[in-house]
Amino acid sequence: MTEKKLPTIAILGGTGKEGPGLALRWAKAGYLIIIGSRQTEKALATAAELNAQLNIDSIQGMENNLAARMADICVLTVVFTAHQSALESLKEDLHGKILIDATARVDFRSPLPPAPPSAARMAQELLGEQVRVVAAFQNVPSHVLRTNLDQPLDTDVLVCADDSQAAETAIQLAEAAGMRAYYVGNLDIAVVVEGLTSLLISLNKNYKVKTASISVMGIPK
Amino acid sequence: MTEKKLPTIAILGGTGKEGPGLALRWAKAGYLIIIGSRQTEKALATAAELNAQLNIDSIQGMENNLAARMADICVLTVVFTAHQSALESLKEDLHGKILIDATARVDFRSPLPPAPPSAARMAQELLGEQVRVVAAFQNVPSHVLRTNLDQPLDTDVLVCADDSQAAETAIQLAEAAGMRAYYVGNLDIAVVVEGLTSLLISLNKNYKVKTASISVMGIPK
Repeated sequence: MTEKKLPTIAILGGTGKEGPGLALRWAKAGYLIIIGSRQTEKALATAAELNAQLNIDSIQGMENNLAARMADICVLTVVFTAHQSALESLKEDLHGKILIDATARVDFRSPLPPAPPSAARMAQELLGEQVRVVAAFQNVPSHVLRTNLDQPLDTDVLVCADDSQAAETAIQLAEAAGMRAYYVGNLDIAVVVEGLTSLLISLNKNYKVKTASISVMGIPK
Repeated sequence: MTEKKLPTIAILGGTGKEGPGLALRWAKAGYLIIIGSRQTEKALATAAELNAQLNIDSIQGMENNLAARMADICVLTVVFTAHQSALESLKEDLHGKILIDATARVDFRSPLPPAPPSAARMAQELLGEQVRVVAAFQNVPSHVLRTNLDQPLDTDVLVCADDSQAAETAIQLAEAAGMRAYYVGNLDIAVVVEGLTSLLISLNKNYKVKTASISVMGIPK
């Protein structure tokens, strides 16, 4: 029996809130992880911190474009204001790959939830058909990702993609990180999932918690 | 000790899929229920059917406008294509009341989720400030509402309203019907809850079920 080699994952904009938690969980599950950042030093610092936390040395840090080129699967975890510029600068490096867009679409200046098209649809149109875009992980509370790494998370991942095979890759990654995941539909419907971020922020505020999340019920596994 | 009299609830457009299930659960919880319909005969027939199911005779049936006038709280459960015309014809009768808008915003001709403004915001603008609009119950699977009436439902109600006291009324009604309910925010954010209907329809299709629903996690009760 040969063990199947797991793909290398680059987490682009991976020094923020969401990236490190995903990196920790995927590294523990055996994936090779690259932390990408616009600044190499920040990427190296985050990679070193995560390696130390897991007592490993396999997590690498490098500049975003190089990280994207080195990886099989890229995960984008930038803030929404940096979404378009990040995609433009990464377009060539993402050619032929799966991009999992985890960008939370929140405009803190506006109380309104987002209007269609979804950020993920915008990403797909900007990147063209040579990149398979998947929308996922936008709503996972970042601080629960980083704690109790050995325990499954009580939160579900709603996956949207035009390409159902690419969606399946994201579902496997969600499961490897200890979450249940469901394939919702194409990238257009991702606007609802993006809107859930506003909804969860409201719920956190109303109920004075930081842990509100959404779970799917009624689908037997 | 005097027992507090429960308010009378009119379910407008109550002969469809969603109304009867809510009526059954609220009648069992002791509320006086009026089934409203554009056609008196249909309202009477549904009321008779529900009374027979519960072995009671307190559920009344009448024409929508009369039902609205007789009630303390009105719940609108029409299909989205009938939403605006129903509101226009009921505007005078709803004066001074709480309207819980449970209309599912689904356009079966379009695969796109809804854009802002929310249907509930449109209702509030059409009805004016003399009516307190609450958005709730849009996503409760109708066939689970009608079965196992004595058991709590494994589905959550996301409540949106500009008036938090009106929201609290809807939360009490959700709990009386065996559901957990959460106050999300104002009527603008209801567009996300309305979009969940499209998302649940997709999930039901992908996973070949009819029972997909959304639950809120991470908020201790």
